[in-house]
Amino acid sequence: MRRSKFFMPTLKEIPAEAQIPSHRLMLRAGMVRQTAAGIYSWLPMGYRVLKKIEQIVREEMDATGAQEILMPTIQPAELWRESGRYDDYGKEMLRITDRHGRDMLYGPTNEEQITDIFRKTVRSYRDLPKLLYHIQWKFRDEVRPRFGVMRGREFLMKDSYSFDLDYESARRSYNKMFVSYLRTFARMGLTPIPMAADSGAIGGDMSHEFIILADTGESAVYCDKAWFNTDPLSLDIDFDADLQSIVDRWTELYAAADEKHDPATCPVDADQLYTGRGIEVGHIFNFGTKYSKSMGATVSNSEGQEVPVEMGSYGIGVSRLVGAIIEASHDAVGIIWPPSVAPFQVGLINLRAGDAGCDAVCQQLYDGLAAANIETLYDDRDERAGVKFAEMDLIGLPWQIAVGPRGVKAGTVEIKQRGGEREEVPAESALARLT
Amino acid sequence: MRRSKFFMPTLKEIPAEAQIPSHRLMLRAGMVRQTAAGIYSWLPMGYRVLKKIEQIVREEMDATGAQEILMPTIQPAELWRESGRYDDYGKEMLRITDRHGRDMLYGPTNEEQITDIFRKTVRSYRDLPKLLYHIQWKFRDEVRPRFGVMRGREFLMKDSYSFDLDYESARRSYNKMFVSYLRTFARMGLTPIPMAADSGAIGGDMSHEFIILADTGESAVYCDKAWFNTDPLSLDIDFDADLQSIVDRWTELYAAADEKHDPATCPVDADQLYTGRGIEVGHIFNFGTKYSKSMGATVSNSEGQEVPVEMGSYGIGVSRLVGAIIEASHDAVGIIWPPSVAPFQVGLINLRAGDAGCDAVCQQLYDGLAAANIETLYDDRDERAGVKFAEMDLIGLPWQIAVGPRGVKAGTVEIKQRGGEREEVPAESALARLT
Repeated sequence: MRRSKFFMPTLKEIPAEAQIPSHRLMLRAGMVRQTAAGIYSWLPMGYRVLKKIEQIVREEMDATGAQEILMPTIQPAELWRESGRYDDYGKEMLRITDRHGRDMLYGPTNEEQITDIFRKTVRSYRDLPKLLYHIQWKFRDEVRPRFGVMRGREFLMKDSYSFDLDYESARRSYNKMFVSYLRTFARMGLTPIPMAADSGAIGGDMSHEFIILADTGESAVYCDKAWFNTDPLSLDIDFDADLQSIVDRWTELYAAADEKHDPATCPVDADQLYTGRGIEVGHIFNFGTKYSKSMGATVSNSEGQEVPVEMGSYGIGVSRLVGAIIEASHDAVGIIWPPSVAPFQVGLINLRAGDAGCDAVCQQLYDGLAAANIETLYDDRDERAGVKFAEMDLIGLPWQIAVGPRGVKAGTVEIKQRGGEREEVPAESALARLT
Repeated sequence: MRRSKFFMPTLKEIPAEAQIPSHRLMLRAGMVRQTAAGIYSWLPMGYRVLKKIEQIVREEMDATGAQEILMPTIQPAELWRESGRYDDYGKEMLRITDRHGRDMLYGPTNEEQITDIFRKTVRSYRDLPKLLYHIQWKFRDEVRPRFGVMRGREFLMKDSYSFDLDYESARRSYNKMFVSYLRTFARMGLTPIPMAADSGAIGGDMSHEFIILADTGESAVYCDKAWFNTDPLSLDIDFDADLQSIVDRWTELYAAADEKHDPATCPVDADQLYTGRGIEVGHIFNFGTKYSKSMGATVSNSEGQEVPVEMGSYGIGVSRLVGAIIEASHDAVGIIWPPSVAPFQVGLINLRAGDAGCDAVCQQLYDGLAAANIETLYDDRDERAGVKFAEMDLIGLPWQIAVGPRGVKAGTVEIKQRGGEREEVPAESALARLT
């Protein structure tokens, strides 16, 4: 993509309403624009990142055997009256009346709707277990939306739902999601820490929040430093097998949020205890028969009896992750994208656009990178070098290649990793390193 | 995907509310379920098709140089008050009041929102032309939603918007979309017919509806039989060049809808005139400065004067296309998917699941197809052959392979194209034909 054509309205001024780094950087880098409080338009740069995150989530869901569906954003209120949540939900639910006076709502989540689909379609224990997911926009009418996409009103979420005949099978489904979440966040360059969460009487120990570490995170986190030696991607996972041993390994390490951490009873030695901050990016939860009982979602078991199905729900904040990754990975001058979610892999800077030598070397590199399917943003504009370098640092692509007249004469270009040191190498070597 | 695991709740009964083939077939094949009037959940089979259509639309948009963004579903009413459409739109607009009493709405289209983005970000003629698009759910509160996804309330649409300095540049943008639409629909196995549409005083001749032919279509179509010899995919398109000659070639052939066709003045001889039915799947429209003037979207031209930008909007009904393709391509027993949008390419039928020979040959074919990246639905259930054949015909995958005990003994399997004749061939030949 040529920068001269690319729709990326960067901002020089730091917007006053933006209080946290990710919000500031996303606005400055032209990734999003606010259209109303807590409601954003995703411009090309932001949308590319959102799509990459979504695709990683999708691939890791598919790997578990979960099947993708898409439920609509607008739901009938009657489903929520059945579950009893219509009145409970309060003002965060965006309530709507259609032209015929029917009560509708913009889904803040989809337990009722998926339960409705299940009860209309699945009859027998032979069709279980089932794992379904969708990636859909939700709306929660926050009283004070802030922090950009981290706490917006309209937000993209992956929510999956499990349906099992009994508790033991529900545990296996839960474990699949647990392990899948570890992998999903790790693929985005994050360190995911599952923390036991309150689940009420029903869920037992099957409720975890997934926190990622970020210095600018919203809440305090206390955890064993051994967390930093965990790597979910090094595991060879068979999602058809029992994953309990992996879950055990990841839950035996100490981790607690502010409200649960008590220095007096903490089992980790002070020098082994990491104290930092984190951001919640996922939540998994077994709620047993809460919805299946109230909404009549039953299957016949092997003895022919109708039993309510065991359910769980599992959420990942997809649009929130765009902000969370930036919170976890930025410096004073801009974003530092993990390669797996970077909008482009390479920023190619022509330091003197219009100079025949610079243009030719840039074109050669641009073509070579394109031929190797490496997404490249080519800054071909007639702008000062300082402007171009600053913008490349701001938008945080993993690699930068700069081509200037002096280097062209000497047969070299400059290459650097975002945040790393510049290195002068022959153009072919730069290409070879990236392809 | 193994059929035994696949979430595809087919229906044996023809649902009473479904009046047209696509609606009936989509419900019977377990592609969608209605959640409220005109609002559907997309189950795995339907969602796969929706995604394939969306991806074709995206690829053809990208080929024109259009850039993808995503605007939110919920918009502030104030934007529509600026354009004057808030009061004009009537009851089809889903109006919402948020918790702070602000007037919002679920976007039925996005002219106002994109104009708002443009006026906040683009200042100079040097940044033109611009082509932006998004693929997003819309809502129109139809008084009587019907025909399934063909006329739903919540529907997925691709809408693109062009921004140009002057009329001549706007024409070039319009032509890009025109040619892109021809390609897009042709890739889905459809015959697209652009028909001049009313555009009011502003648009001049720059307004076309794209109709695809389907015997069960909603409106009558009269057109030159020469249309059937057109093939947009045979053209070598350079989207940077002037496309007027291609547009001319596609607009000189006669085509008219019912209300415009007059046998007395029709220039086509009766034996050369095709009379059939069609479905509108796209609409492209130049509206000049309608929104840029009312909303103050200007750029400075080369003389430094502020001038309102020339705009056009271009829509494709993505979810509607799922139904439209079925209307255009089905028979008495089911859907006939064009390969480019088929949910799977191959249906593999094990005629005696549990029989060691049949299981082995099926597994071998299933693995071979997977190795060649051919999406296969493998019916491994313990069901009667008739049930399996009927379901495969219903869901309309392009190819079927049936493996039975007799064939296994003889070293053969049956292969057929959907709607074609069965043929007995060695298993390796079947695999070779498809890979």
